[in-house]
Amino acid sequence: MGKLAEGSSIPPSSSVGKAIVDEVRQSPILALIIFVPVVIVLERLTPDAHTLLFLLSVVAIIPLAALLSRATEAVAAKTGDAVGGLLNATLGNLTELVISLAALQAGQYLLVKASIAGAIVTNTLFMLGGSFLLGGLKHHIQEFNRVNARFQACMLFLATIAVLVPSLISEVDQPPAPEVSQTLSLGLSILLIVVYALGMFFSLRTHKELFASVSHSGEEEKPWPMTLALVLLVVVTLLVALVSEIFVGSVQVAAEHLGMTPAFVGFIVVALVGAAAEMTTAFSAARADRLDLSVGIALGSSAQIALFVAPLLVLVSYFIGPEPMTLQFWRGAVTMMIVATLAAAFLSNGGRGTWYAGIMVLALYGIFAFTLFVLPPARPS
Amino acid sequence: MGKLAEGSSIPPSSSVGKAIVDEVRQSPILALIIFVPVVIVLERLTPDAHTLLFLLSVVAIIPLAALLSRATEAVAAKTGDAVGGLLNATLGNLTELVISLAALQAGQYLLVKASIAGAIVTNTLFMLGGSFLLGGLKHHIQEFNRVNARFQACMLFLATIAVLVPSLISEVDQPPAPEVSQTLSLGLSILLIVVYALGMFFSLRTHKELFASVSHSGEEEKPWPMTLALVLLVVVTLLVALVSEIFVGSVQVAAEHLGMTPAFVGFIVVALVGAAAEMTTAFSAARADRLDLSVGIALGSSAQIALFVAPLLVLVSYFIGPEPMTLQFWRGAVTMMIVATLAAAFLSNGGRGTWYAGIMVLALYGIFAFTLFVLPPARPS
Amino acid sequence: MGKLAEGSSIPPSSSVGKAIVDEVRQSPILALIIFVPVVIVLERLTPDAHTLLFLLSVVAIIPLAALLSRATEAVAAKTGDAVGGLLNATLGNLTELVISLAALQAGQYLLVKASIAGAIVTNTLFMLGGSFLLGGLKHHIQEFNRVNARFQACMLFLATIAVLVPSLISEVDQPPAPEVSQTLSLGLSILLIVVYALGMFFSLRTHKELFASVSHSGEEEKPWPMTLALVLLVVVTLLVALVSEIFVGSVQVAAEHLGMTPAFVGFIVVALVGAAAEMTTAFSAARADRLDLSVGIALGSSAQIALFVAPLLVLVSYFIGPEPMTLQFWRGAVTMMIVATLAAAFLSNGGRGTWYAGIMVLALYGIFAFTLFVLPPARPS
Repeated sequence: MGKLAEGSSIPPSSSVGKAIVDEVRQSPILALIIFVPVVIVLERLTPDAHTLLFLLSVVAIIPLAALLSRATEAVAAKTGDAVGGLLNATLGNLTELVISLAALQAGQYLLVKASIAGAIVTNTLFMLGGSFLLGGLKHHIQEFNRVNARFQACMLFLATIAVLVPSLISEVDQPPAPEVSQTLSLGLSILLIVVYALGMFFSLRTHKELFASVSHSGEEEKPWPMTLALVLLVVVTLLVALVSEIFVGSVQVAAEHLGMTPAFVGFIVVALVGAAAEMTTAFSAARADRLDLSVGIALGSSAQIALFVAPLLVLVSYFIGPEPMTLQFWRGAVTMMIVATLAAAFLSNGGRGTWYAGIMVLALYGIFAFTLFVLPPARPS
Repeated sequence: MGKLAEGSSIPPSSSVGKAIVDEVRQSPILALIIFVPVVIVLERLTPDAHTLLFLLSVVAIIPLAALLSRATEAVAAKTGDAVGGLLNATLGNLTELVISLAALQAGQYLLVKASIAGAIVTNTLFMLGGSFLLGGLKHHIQEFNRVNARFQACMLFLATIAVLVPSLISEVDQPPAPEVSQTLSLGLSILLIVVYALGMFFSLRTHKELFASVSHSGEEEKPWPMTLALVLLVVVTLLVALVSEIFVGSVQVAAEHLGMTPAFVGFIVVALVGAAAEMTTAFSAARADRLDLSVGIALGSSAQIALFVAPLLVLVSYFIGPEPMTLQFWRGAVTMMIVATLAAAFLSNGGRGTWYAGIMVLALYGIFAFTLFVLPPARPS
Repeated sequence: MGKLAEGSSIPPSSSVGKAIVDEVRQSPILALIIFVPVVIVLERLTPDAHTLLFLLSVVAIIPLAALLSRATEAVAAKTGDAVGGLLNATLGNLTELVISLAALQAGQYLLVKASIAGAIVTNTLFMLGGSFLLGGLKHHIQEFNRVNARFQACMLFLATIAVLVPSLISEVDQPPAPEVSQTLSLGLSILLIVVYALGMFFSLRTHKELFASVSHSGEEEKPWPMTLALVLLVVVTLLVALVSEIFVGSVQVAAEHLGMTPAFVGFIVVALVGAAAEMTTAFSAARADRLDLSVGIALGSSAQIALFVAPLLVLVSYFIGPEPMTLQFWRGAVTMMIVATLAAAFLSNGGRGTWYAGIMVLALYGIFAFTLFVLPPARPS
């Protein structure tokens, strides 16, 4: 925070390479980065090996997501509180966003919606559940700041309901005409982005002390120089876009081959892959008895999907998709999202974590995944 | 409270006039009272100017509702705690009741139901949201008594679910035969009114200390003499009834002309107009950092709609309507009512208000209004 | 707890009789035990007096359930904390289990499902509501340990949602093929039983201090000798099985005759009868200002139905039923279960009980019962 950016000359590419090697040493997950060139080369050689390309692209995205998250934090740390917070808040779900944009361009709207719904459910149930379990196995009972957690859970509930209004209302009478559904989704998306912008003003300016603990996340790691971070941010985003395109191109055939539906892939696989980096942070915070931080990351990230990523994708669909995308989700997804936010609200409300609470939440996530595998959505939208 | 009623001789009409002029000086909203004679005269002259009559009657009801609320409070203050509380509790939603009775008599059941549902949603989302926003713009964080708020939110949840049972159960299997639905609604209404009566016994007799803060609402204003208050109560109720009839008579044609459905008018317009007076109190309490009072008014008023106004209208429909009214709501209304009470529960639970929480709740209300405008209920009941 | 089992020689049957007579003197409800031989003899003599047999078997099960509960506690007290807790946790809903097994064998799946759903709703709404009312009539306000209650309510919410996933997801799109529904229910049941086993490990081993107050339930009563308790446990279970068979054999004709549906009988009658013993304990704990204990019994017992009894019945249906049973509930039951657990969560959250809260919860239960009576499920499953 206090230090100014050093080394602002553009570093030679060897320096980027060295930074990556250093990082890999610290977090072994980054070793998976080797699969990035592998999958890119393979796609040139055998563009029809869909299952292999699908699996490799999934594995390749994981380290890229981790790097992206590190680079965002590094830039954020250098630019100071306000802009940094803004960056963190906007780019926090960059991986999901890039994957979804690739799917949007390919017109795979069910995959896009499934990954939006899945990101909310995964970030609450899986990330919260995993944090409670891992933290609880090390610490007998973990108390956390109930007031903040409750406030954030309430905001998440409101955000999720807001994004679900078109589905809730129309599922409930006859499905509306497509134009009506588009008008509704467009108006709603604009409103949600305004609310999101006000939310950033709230958390970064007027009430930043409420969100203090979350910003300490990268504390113990040595920050990268500014230019390196910026270059990495751009390069890695491009790589994610490249690999995402391969992923989206192979997913349909591969999923069929592996017995999965696009809904399952979007809901479970994309959501887990996209959130891998945040999960690492949330889980290690829980191990370090900082469950506050884990809860903050999980709830904040979910709320960001609802208030920012989902409406942004609707707006972008007017420019890059074959037709405007709506916020009309299939009914199983609606149920799962509501259950997930209610579970998050009740858990936050408790104000303490134990390993068994983690087991229960993970079991619910497992049940959702199992159900989605056995019983895919009947009417894709 | 301690003082006895002074000036119990019937005042000359000039005294009523003077009291009104005094009031207008204090709260400028009362100046709108000029529209009451205007709309009544206009209805004689041009009974077919539906849109104009509709707009004028809406505007005319606002100051009447405010006067009604002041008169009720004045009578309540003079009659002592128990009877006064009873009056306040029974007449608190008198405006909604009178409007709904006019609609009931005209057989406009969708308008009646929409205004019941809308009153619950408006009183929770709009009144709570507005209080949080207006209070939060002046005070950084407003703490409020969590225990009472939670208790009231829990009661509101139970009351709303109770009133929704016929809709929840039958939406869920085939719609029941009309006679079954009527039997269910009748039995339920009697039970709800008994529960409401017990609730008054609870809040006015056995546990009145829990509701103490709410009764201070009119403290700073100079109370009216008893007879003046009583006369005003009767006169203004009659005026509301008169204007409501014009309102109900013009609403259908006017709403169509303005591109609104009866459901939208009932849900948003009637609900906002009917609650205008309570909102003024709730909002100024929030500005004065007494968010407890705002939350109490919002939750208490909603619970009263569910436990008293709605079942009373069902019972009265056996006498004045063309056929018995049921408690069968269209599915969008059910969803919105449940979401609103859940949101109220989670907000109360937090125990503190900030401007952004207000924004979120108001955004949800805006989304509901927008949805209802774009997508009216497909099967009116 | 500290004392070892005395009198481990098998007691003469007269000693069993004496123990029963002693118990009857203490709790008059046990006098109803006279109906056990009556109903068994009557079934031999007039097997077609269905209505009489139904009514008598209901009355006969009540004292058996009470004895079963006492015997379980006595065995549990002698075997020490861990095994005892295990027994209590496993056999706590033994009566419901035995009745449901008899219904399962007779292929009356709607009755089985109704009694599962009814047990969850009755244990939360009726037992909690009754405890709040009875406690509140004696004590002005009863505070209870909010943290534990909240934790248990959260666990109950997760458990109920888990058991409802097949209904929630499939109600929501087209109903799935029967084989898919069976696969889903089977997988889910295995997972739920694993979660239940882990839960026992949690509550009996790693975090037993969180559940301490519940285990004091039988404190003031003199414990029975071990062998007596064991013999009683076996004998009474057999008697319950015998009477349950008569009950299940007569219920269909009798219910029709009394104007009730099997769904109503299962949901209300079986649930109330099966939980009679626990209710007695919960209600007297509330009178003794130990609302913590009442809440613990109510929430714990409901969670046990969801996590253990329901999945066990699914597994057993593969061996003794005409076809595998699924966890597919009719939609009204789903709504009631979710509302009941939400109500339990909000009540626990409040952390204090008053008589009016009890009235509200009992009113909701009454409304559910009334609705189910007037409007039985349209498509039994």
